[in-house]
Amino acid sequence: MELEQVKPQEIEKRSFEIITELLGEKKLDPENALVIKRAIHTTADFDYADHLKFSPHAVKMGMEAIRQGASIVTDTNMGKAGINKKKLARYGGQVYCFMADEDVAAMAKQNGTTRAVASMDKAASLKQDLIFAVGNAPTALIRLYELICEGRIAPRLIIGVPVGFVNVIQSKELILNLEKEMGIRVPYIIAEGRKGGSNVAAAICNALLYQME
Amino acid sequence: MELEQVKPQEIEKRSFEIITELLGEKKLDPENALVIKRAIHTTADFDYADHLKFSPHAVKMGMEAIRQGASIVTDTNMGKAGINKKKLARYGGQVYCFMADEDVAAMAKQNGTTRAVASMDKAASLKQDLIFAVGNAPTALIRLYELICEGRIAPRLIIGVPVGFVNVIQSKELILNLEKEMGIRVPYIIAEGRKGGSNVAAAICNALLYQME
Repeated sequence: MELEQVKPQEIEKRSFEIITELLGEKKLDPENALVIKRAIHTTADFDYADHLKFSPHAVKMGMEAIRQGASIVTDTNMGKAGINKKKLARYGGQVYCFMADEDVAAMAKQNGTTRAVASMDKAASLKQDLIFAVGNAPTALIRLYELICEGRIAPRLIIGVPVGFVNVIQSKELILNLEKEMGIRVPYIIAEGRKGGSNVAAAICNALLYQME
Repeated sequence: MELEQVKPQEIEKRSFEIITELLGEKKLDPENALVIKRAIHTTADFDYADHLKFSPHAVKMGMEAIRQGASIVTDTNMGKAGINKKKLARYGGQVYCFMADEDVAAMAKQNGTTRAVASMDKAASLKQDLIFAVGNAPTALIRLYELICEGRIAPRLIIGVPVGFVNVIQSKELILNLEKEMGIRVPYIIAEGRKGGSNVAAAICNALLYQME
């Protein structure tokens, strides 16, 4: 197989052309297409074309939140490393990840929870508009659900893409069913099933940021 | 679907049990099993059970390199964020990612290459044993191949898991065929096909580190 000659600054554009070709006849909702394609771009996994679920106008609402200065809370330092912090800062937001904080480790130990749970509790004390990008720990998403139900937090958007095998599917269902079961409407972008990851969480955040230019 | 009751410190163990269950009858080479399972753990993507290719004793040789103090060079700051740097430091190694360095940006601009290419050139100037963990840019893997062929670098192990659509498959084939076509033997762990990512690169590094304890 021969190398394709593509200039460095053309690689991403060419990648998205190939993704569009490979999607073929598959129809994506235009509002969500760039988020879906960027998730595929970062994983080469076309399952995301079927498994990403969007509440009505979630992408628009996420962009609006960023435009109004919302910050992003994520549960992994890998996710934080991947989010385009410079672009976010243009609107006044920043990226928080509390997972490595000493007070979070102490709180988790004291309460017998994961650090991800403690990091969501810490986020709930922030008095500002927040988007949550959960790319690793279902326990973070479950805790976020509880904090929402208790009225202690009202995320502008939940990007719920934890990955794995213990309570991952369940944690996503809690968010997908929030409105139906609890009567609480929170915009979401959720990767149904076991798949997700910090790379996917970062890619979705960046897909919002890149559409805003 | 009900939440499974698992203690925080048991989640990872339980995850690996579920992965083993889901793999079913599939036989993994015991030498490579923990690397494969950790790649699945970080992606929930069972394709890695088929697509990860190992040169003979690559895992053992990677662990031996780390034990002797080898450092890891990666092409993404997300990968760097995900690698367990504390465990690596016990053996004397550290993690380098040159992607955001100003001299790398300048070199890339001057030479009309990607920054990933320039970051591999910078790595070639390091006078120490290195493991390369390429989780993003196929251009990094292609440049690494060229540097090896030119005798300018001799990696102790190549973890070649770039992801995407432009020259990704080809870049991996260059490494897979190094011995057959160029007569040069370099240990490798390669994710055949388009899939991979910074999370997979970090997971493979960590799988080596965690087996060494």
